[in-house]
Amino acid sequence: MATLATIADIARHDGQTVTLHGWIYNSTPRGKLLFLQLRDGTGLMQCVLRKNKMDAEAFEAVRRAGQESSVVITGLVKADERSKIGFELVASDAQVVQDAADYPITPKDHGVAFLHDHRHLWVRSQRQFAILRIRHLCVKAIRDYFDSRGFVLFDSPMFTPNAVEGTTTLFETEYFGQKAYLTQSGQLYQESGALAFGRTYCFGPTFRAEKSSTRRHLTEFWMVEPELAWVDLEDIMDLAEDFLVEVVGYVVEHGREYLEILERDISVLEKVQKPFPRMSYDEACAKLAELGVEVEPEDDFGSPHETELTQQFDRPIMVHRYPTAVKAFYMKEDPTNPARCLGVDVLAPEGYGEVIGGGQREDSLDVLVSKIEHHGLPMEAFGWYLDLRRWGSCPHGGFGLGLERLVTWVCGIHHIRETIPFPRTIDRLTP
Amino acid sequence: MATLATIADIARHDGQTVTLHGWIYNSTPRGKLLFLQLRDGTGLMQCVLRKNKMDAEAFEAVRRAGQESSVVITGLVKADERSKIGFELVASDAQVVQDAADYPITPKDHGVAFLHDHRHLWVRSQRQFAILRIRHLCVKAIRDYFDSRGFVLFDSPMFTPNAVEGTTTLFETEYFGQKAYLTQSGQLYQESGALAFGRTYCFGPTFRAEKSSTRRHLTEFWMVEPELAWVDLEDIMDLAEDFLVEVVGYVVEHGREYLEILERDISVLEKVQKPFPRMSYDEACAKLAELGVEVEPEDDFGSPHETELTQQFDRPIMVHRYPTAVKAFYMKEDPTNPARCLGVDVLAPEGYGEVIGGGQREDSLDVLVSKIEHHGLPMEAFGWYLDLRRWGSCPHGGFGLGLERLVTWVCGIHHIRETIPFPRTIDRLTP
Repeated sequence: MATLATIADIARHDGQTVTLHGWIYNSTPRGKLLFLQLRDGTGLMQCVLRKNKMDAEAFEAVRRAGQESSVVITGLVKADERSKIGFELVASDAQVVQDAADYPITPKDHGVAFLHDHRHLWVRSQRQFAILRIRHLCVKAIRDYFDSRGFVLFDSPMFTPNAVEGTTTLFETEYFGQKAYLTQSGQLYQESGALAFGRTYCFGPTFRAEKSSTRRHLTEFWMVEPELAWVDLEDIMDLAEDFLVEVVGYVVEHGREYLEILERDISVLEKVQKPFPRMSYDEACAKLAELGVEVEPEDDFGSPHETELTQQFDRPIMVHRYPTAVKAFYMKEDPTNPARCLGVDVLAPEGYGEVIGGGQREDSLDVLVSKIEHHGLPMEAFGWYLDLRRWGSCPHGGFGLGLERLVTWVCGIHHIRETIPFPRTIDRLTP
Repeated sequence: MATLATIADIARHDGQTVTLHGWIYNSTPRGKLLFLQLRDGTGLMQCVLRKNKMDAEAFEAVRRAGQESSVVITGLVKADERSKIGFELVASDAQVVQDAADYPITPKDHGVAFLHDHRHLWVRSQRQFAILRIRHLCVKAIRDYFDSRGFVLFDSPMFTPNAVEGTTTLFETEYFGQKAYLTQSGQLYQESGALAFGRTYCFGPTFRAEKSSTRRHLTEFWMVEPELAWVDLEDIMDLAEDFLVEVVGYVVEHGREYLEILERDISVLEKVQKPFPRMSYDEACAKLAELGVEVEPEDDFGSPHETELTQQFDRPIMVHRYPTAVKAFYMKEDPTNPARCLGVDVLAPEGYGEVIGGGQREDSLDVLVSKIEHHGLPMEAFGWYLDLRRWGSCPHGGFGLGLERLVTWVCGIHHIRETIPFPRTIDRLTP
């Protein structure tokens, strides 16, 4: 019996007879020859079938089989300079396992809705294949980064008991007679983890019932959230910078073939190096004024501001010390100016905008209590969170990175919905 | 300034003066001496403070500080044979960052409900620390296993549009005017992934609104689900066996210190080696009859059967070919006996029971259609799933492993709720 092989590993089998399991990606008959693009999930490879060099009935069966028919092909691995992967397969035997006809996704253009309706099949296409491979590389680089630096994985719960900041963007469910809400961020729980383990992270789905339909929003997306005890805002900026350089570097190193399928300009990603420009919110406002972009005084930035700012630089930038008034209650105020808080956003270049948001947390019990009152939040919901300031409080902080925003930027694609196997948006819950 | 160090890395600093950031785990004054157990999230270390060798006020401040006060301590790392970690710290300087009083979790016994109400603090205790470290090691071993064997991470969605098998164990939410349900398994989506990438896995939260309150159930738990094209039941059993041996071996190798904190009998885990005993459901029934345990004919096994069976062996066992009638519609029937299906459960020893369930999927369109009809399920919900048999169908299968059941078994503990940072059960949604 011939050795089982995969296309990704085909170079190991140069000159050998191997068996490949896969699917017909494309098929071009030329008389008694058949040129088959075989897809096996690890790559694409040309297989050449000759009617007079194999069982004629098997040849005919493969010749007649439609796109995405599943096939088993045995043949000789032969070096071929014209091939992208350097090899082709000279078939000696072939078998059609399931003969498929009228595969709905053809080389012609399809509408976006049609493709998303067929997402379960569309993921077989080269471009989607490449994006989802990049997604996997991003996840691996992220986890390896934290695992190798003493962070303990500390999964935050999906079900949370309180809708502390209102229910408008929360998904609600009946939980054995009470209401439960799906998490929007694991951060508060990570703070408990950081005081137990020194440094922790969670990396799981988060949910936002955003009524807006934009190319940067999903209702269900994955977020990684590291949290560290004994750090200040500078440490958090250093970490975010080091982290992004490492993760993007890993993907460029291990994902070049997929970035090439996407025709991504890799030189842009290679510029993601330290140091990232750092500027305060007030400096950023001055810069925007210079560029003729208006910012409402003391207001948060929107997409247009982020786009304008990031276009001034060839790498991500870090904007820190936003107005306290527009940020969450748990952000620590800047001791030199209470109107500013010790938060930071990391904005990706090329207009991709915010990929990381984080900062130092308020660690004083008294200040936190007054912030909760000031924000009109229900104190009783925060009993356990306040406990973290009653027992063993210390300077601490962290950040959150939205996985799909990272993948969108790294891949250089337009819409976030292609970066997750089965996207969920305001108008899509299927397949 | 002294070097910053962590307790886990303290051996590197033998003879050096270092600074540790941490929390007072325990404190024993003896006249002008203070023996402090310092917890820094990476381990525990004894620090010795002498009143006449340091600032007297600083000494007094630390002496007075309660359990879980946060402190910064600088001192000399000195080898000490009596120490579990081989070193103690001879302090020269100390600072109390937050002076905590009346920490609620004391060395005395507390009730289960009290501890779970204080889960955000309880995770600092040695036993919980050890269990959650083991959890992290399990996750890492699982991901590394699949990442290094060509599996592509293919996250299944959390929101699903249909309650195909009834709503009794489903959490439901309003999704922009329609109903959505939280996933109970990512498998069907993985089948789409396997036909696109050859082999995929997902590893995320799953949700079951189980009305039962047992020591083996959580309403929110993490599951890893690999799926492979071009495999049969034998391949899946080989994979499940190889996977468990590798994962348990990794945890034993890297988590020995945590298993020792839990007083786990490591020799039991070291016996998790190939081959695992394999028996068909019918063979298992015969064995149970021998042991005097009754099985309702053609019925699934319950906990008592699993416990009895697994106690006959010193390693996990695999029971395959259960009655088709009691298993899910997508399981492929055994071609030699349609009353049996090509599924397998892996049962952990010591009465821990099922940790893995899997099998070969029905890959024939016609058979699958008739199974859906036979089970009275709504055909229209399975349009996309049936497409996977219309285009490129092939023999395929996989399995699911519940992370928390694995961690419970590896740790050798009684109740599953200690294996996740913030457990969710029928009667617990907080903190």
